Amino acid sequence: MRFNKIIPSLTLITALALAAAPAAAEVSGETAYVFNTFAFLVHGVLVMFMAAGFAMLESGLVRTKNTATICLKNIALYSIAGIMFYLVGYNLMYVDVPEGGFMGALTLFYNPSADELALIGAADKATPEMVGKVIKGGYSVPSDWFFQMVFVATAASIVSGTVAERIKVWPFMIFVVVLSSVIYPIQASWVWGGGWLDKMGFSDFAGSTLVHSTGGWAALTGAIILGARRGKYGPDGSVRALPGANIPLATLGTFILWFGWFGFNGGSQLALGSALDATAMSIVYVNTNLAAAAGVVVAMLLAQLTYNKVDVSLALNGAIGGLVAITAGPDLQNHLIAIIVGGVGGALVVIAVPLIDKMKIDDVVGAISAHLVAGIWGTLCVGIFGSGSVLTQLIGIVAIGAFVSVVSAIVWFILKATMGIRVSEEDEVLGLDKAECGMEAYPEFGTGSQTL
Amino acid sequence: MRFNKIIPSLTLITALALAAAPAAAEVSGETAYVFNTFAFLVHGVLVMFMAAGFAMLESGLVRTKNTATICLKNIALYSIAGIMFYLVGYNLMYVDVPEGGFMGALTLFYNPSADELALIGAADKATPEMVGKVIKGGYSVPSDWFFQMVFVATAASIVSGTVAERIKVWPFMIFVVVLSSVIYPIQASWVWGGGWLDKMGFSDFAGSTLVHSTGGWAALTGAIILGARRGKYGPDGSVRALPGANIPLATLGTFILWFGWFGFNGGSQLALGSALDATAMSIVYVNTNLAAAAGVVVAMLLAQLTYNKVDVSLALNGAIGGLVAITAGPDLQNHLIAIIVGGVGGALVVIAVPLIDKMKIDDVVGAISAHLVAGIWGTLCVGIFGSGSVLTQLIGIVAIGAFVSVVSAIVWFILKATMGIRVSEEDEVLGLDKAECGMEAYPEFGTGSQTL
Amino acid sequence: MRFNKIIPSLTLITALALAAAPAAAEVSGETAYVFNTFAFLVHGVLVMFMAAGFAMLESGLVRTKNTATICLKNIALYSIAGIMFYLVGYNLMYVDVPEGGFMGALTLFYNPSADELALIGAADKATPEMVGKVIKGGYSVPSDWFFQMVFVATAASIVSGTVAERIKVWPFMIFVVVLSSVIYPIQASWVWGGGWLDKMGFSDFAGSTLVHSTGGWAALTGAIILGARRGKYGPDGSVRALPGANIPLATLGTFILWFGWFGFNGGSQLALGSALDATAMSIVYVNTNLAAAAGVVVAMLLAQLTYNKVDVSLALNGAIGGLVAITAGPDLQNHLIAIIVGGVGGALVVIAVPLIDKMKIDDVVGAISAHLVAGIWGTLCVGIFGSGSVLTQLIGIVAIGAFVSVVSAIVWFILKATMGIRVSEEDEVLGLDKAECGMEAYPEFGTGSQTL
Repeated sequence: MRFNKIIPSLTLITALALAAAPAAAEVSGETAYVFNTFAFLVHGVLVMFMAAGFAMLESGLVRTKNTATICLKNIALYSIAGIMFYLVGYNLMYVDVPEGGFMGALTLFYNPSADELALIGAADKATPEMVGKVIKGGYSVPSDWFFQMVFVATAASIVSGTVAERIKVWPFMIFVVVLSSVIYPIQASWVWGGGWLDKMGFSDFAGSTLVHSTGGWAALTGAIILGARRGKYGPDGSVRALPGANIPLATLGTFILWFGWFGFNGGSQLALGSALDATAMSIVYVNTNLAAAAGVVVAMLLAQLTYNKVDVSLALNGAIGGLVAITAGPDLQNHLIAIIVGGVGGALVVIAVPLIDKMKIDDVVGAISAHLVAGIWGTLCVGIFGSGSVLTQLIGIVAIGAFVSVVSAIVWFILKATMGIRVSEEDEVLGLDKAECGMEAYPEFGTGSQTL
Repeated sequence: MRFNKIIPSLTLITALALAAAPAAAEVSGETAYVFNTFAFLVHGVLVMFMAAGFAMLESGLVRTKNTATICLKNIALYSIAGIMFYLVGYNLMYVDVPEGGFMGALTLFYNPSADELALIGAADKATPEMVGKVIKGGYSVPSDWFFQMVFVATAASIVSGTVAERIKVWPFMIFVVVLSSVIYPIQASWVWGGGWLDKMGFSDFAGSTLVHSTGGWAALTGAIILGARRGKYGPDGSVRALPGANIPLATLGTFILWFGWFGFNGGSQLALGSALDATAMSIVYVNTNLAAAAGVVVAMLLAQLTYNKVDVSLALNGAIGGLVAITAGPDLQNHLIAIIVGGVGGALVVIAVPLIDKMKIDDVVGAISAHLVAGIWGTLCVGIFGSGSVLTQLIGIVAIGAFVSVVSAIVWFILKATMGIRVSEEDEVLGLDKAECGMEAYPEFGTGSQTL
Repeated sequence: MRFNKIIPSLTLITALALAAAPAAAEVSGETAYVFNTFAFLVHGVLVMFMAAGFAMLESGLVRTKNTATICLKNIALYSIAGIMFYLVGYNLMYVDVPEGGFMGALTLFYNPSADELALIGAADKATPEMVGKVIKGGYSVPSDWFFQMVFVATAASIVSGTVAERIKVWPFMIFVVVLSSVIYPIQASWVWGGGWLDKMGFSDFAGSTLVHSTGGWAALTGAIILGARRGKYGPDGSVRALPGANIPLATLGTFILWFGWFGFNGGSQLALGSALDATAMSIVYVNTNLAAAAGVVVAMLLAQLTYNKVDVSLALNGAIGGLVAITAGPDLQNHLIAIIVGGVGGALVVIAVPLIDKMKIDDVVGAISAHLVAGIWGTLCVGIFGSGSVLTQLIGIVAIGAFVSVVSAIVWFILKATMGIRVSEEDEVLGLDKAECGMEAYPEFGTGSQTL
């Protein structure tokens, strides 16, 4: 009996608790500090692994000749995002944001708090007073930094997939520098830093808008300014499929993203040190899973009805659409609504992918549909089903969309005008791997049949 | 010195504890609640990732022409299992199972408890009484749902590997619906829900029988009713090897399963909120690892002695055999016995794979050997080495085997008679990816040499 | 506002704490025990997954004809290392090491402590006295065993990559037996067991020297004694590139290693049961991430400047170089130094790879550069930037290097003289997969063009 197994230990606990003072009935301040901190670390590690998920998803969905380059970009962008968020991003996003303001501190280097450094420095000579000062913060500052940092990388990963197969490596890296040190932190400060959108009541639990739509807008402007891949759209308006080279890797990537998303949403509860937080976090996990599952099932059924086949890549993107959609409000108390939010998210992906193609915007992996479109839907859902206001949610979506799009466009144009952002036509035909990295991703597999 | 590092903090703790009342010596009720809940979430996430493990293992062991389809099936089955377990499975398995009964409640939708919803709803206005009501349960209900849900998906994954390369996509999905909403929950209610097998003393810690053999029986009946792949068995009784297309992916899948199995077995301790539980959980981790390791080593040695070569896929299945075998009783207090249990589990796989082939039962990935045969062995071990009775264990094995086989066979036959379960011979030759999904898993790799 | 979300629950906690006795302000002994134990388990699982990371990294960097063999070796070495560490390694490393001594107990089988077995045996009849005895240890012994065990496997994994593509399977396995049961535990007892190097003040937080350099020295002696792969070095001193077959897998492997490294370094805090430990652990996480990120960025820039291209495999090895370098001292209180330590680690890899090639030492995956060279640098950094002495660090590096190299060389020579360690030239041309495993890793991908 799986339910009852817990009884022996609870009996023991109860016996011990009765023997002790009633004081033992609550979570102590230091215990709560440890729980909150450890939750940031564990969930942060899960989100960190999403970088591998994006790398595999994108590796699987590009053609072999551009695969090594997309691998490089993904490990590089995760690295750059972390360093830039350390150098300036965190402070700009969280430190000294004026109430209702527009950005935080323009100072270099995030650091642990002075109280923490004092405690660590004292080590086994630490006094209860030193401990008391530190636990007043509720969690360790470095654990929070770690958890927030991995979100920046996610936003950058979204861009990488959309603009794949024709962007030059180094200009892309520079865009990531700007995105992770300026664009992402400023707009995030408006909400999570306590800025003007937060004051207005805009709500985004784990970042449908702040992370996913932000990545999506940056990707969209990049795709437009960069232009479509050679041969993607015929002069007669036809759309040519340029199928991904490795479907199992794309599947693995999606599973890794789903796995990491429990950290993304669950960790965004931001606390574990009470029964209330642990319960709320559990509900977030369940909603996250149900929304993703609904995204898959709806995308699969819709693809079957529309195209009369079960499309793998739409099913995978359906999962991501469901996950992105639930991210703004995974704290819903009714799981059925999570299924609706995620299912619509999955449907939107199936609908948006051909529409975006019709607009001749070439999104290699479908990231605009899965992250931007589903992200907007999910953010609105907080107003529709949750405690938020639809109008306020809409204001936030538009404001962040405008800011990210305009600044991204400026950066893309500057890069285009200076170093250029697009590889030459010969390099595109040859493939970025040979042209930019001087190597092949799969040198021994018979991949000679690439004509585009 | 790695042992002593812990002393400074313990010294500090002790100093603080002495300064405080003796009440601080135990885990408080709320702290235990948080520990138990967080253990469900963390271990549940690990088990969730096993879905990726099965997807990679199966992707690696099928032929290229059926790879995209197996990817699709794996993400779809995980999604379907979660939704069905939400709709009906959890209640049927756990809610209101009569003592010694045969199934739980036939009600729709699992939900958090009313006390939890009240606590969450109150948020920062929650009273100690509200907290007290919730922590009386010992853990958050949604965290338990999450942990139990991922087990259903595992059972479904086992079926998918065995019947690969010739089953139609949609009938398979429908089988998963029935498996996860009816077959799995009913038999599991007999033991983990507190039903008749639990009353009799049948013991299955984490599911050698309830999860792995259940998946195995469903797979076995499916394989028999579906028939072997074209060309697998010659008219002269010969067995043709149809080698898997991607061994690194199969290896990755096995490592992911091993990784996730710490959640599977460790989380099945079902509690972390006391020194007793934390210690028991640690022992489970160690036994799980040693059993898997022994499964690999024994399978490798046996394959070398039998076939005079070191067979990679047998080594991988040896790990799984060892893991499945220890799953019924990973709480053994003598690690040496875990090595024996796992080692025999690995040996059984090497022995069973050719035997099942001799019976012309076509199990694409060896799942019947690794999950059903090793699962029976592991369940018996609880009687042989643990506190259980061999006879009772045998009754449970037979009862669950009979139930799952009969109901599965009925479902497979109904599906066969109505929509058909097997693709046409042309589609099988062409490959399921082109026939059912209209795509290829590796469109650029020179995979033209497939003649079967 | 993401910062403030924590306030409601903290308010609640505070309210509860005020209502209760002040005793509730600290972590109780039993709660600390659970935290410490769970941290070992969670971090141990992350490190366990590094075995998958090494398997993928090496699978991606060898040629297709040797891929299945490297998969087999990786799952086998993880299994063997675990069993040998259970049989003799743990006791030799940790049990009864004389103060300032040279090795621990030569006894068979690690086991949980008698107090733990008594507690588990008593189950729901456990008395507070029994609990008290167990929690005095600070953590569960099996959880510590599990955490220490996964480190042994890491050392063995390093060897496997360097000597790939020409070593026979079974002699390699025997080397792993000796490495994990004798070589690794003895040198590790000198520091982590409290032996002579620990007494002298040598410091290695998570094993830059004890794990990574040890693996590196064993790999180096193996590579020298084994000789280079056929065709790697021309008679004219030229170096021929033998490119890895699957760059996405190598990328995935690197991401998995990075992911697992949070367990490697974070778990090496060895405790979580206080605000001090939780804070210190958080700092370790941040430094680990920044060092790896710096390793990638520096390696990428240096490769661009040196070779005028962005080299993927150098970027990947840059991450590993950064991670290895920070491993000896990830508890740095200034994150900027972590960036320097990791950045230099990444640079050293880019510099060392061609130098080692110039010495005609054939290291298939660059493990000597990433693990040995960066490991030496990282160990010295504890003296340069941390609290250690450069001289003492140097003594430790030399002593362990000498011990591991000499014993490894003896073992390699004995294996060479008895069963032989290198496959025949025909088998090397044919590939180890066909020669030793009788199979192919990618039987359907057109890999006929291998001429070496």
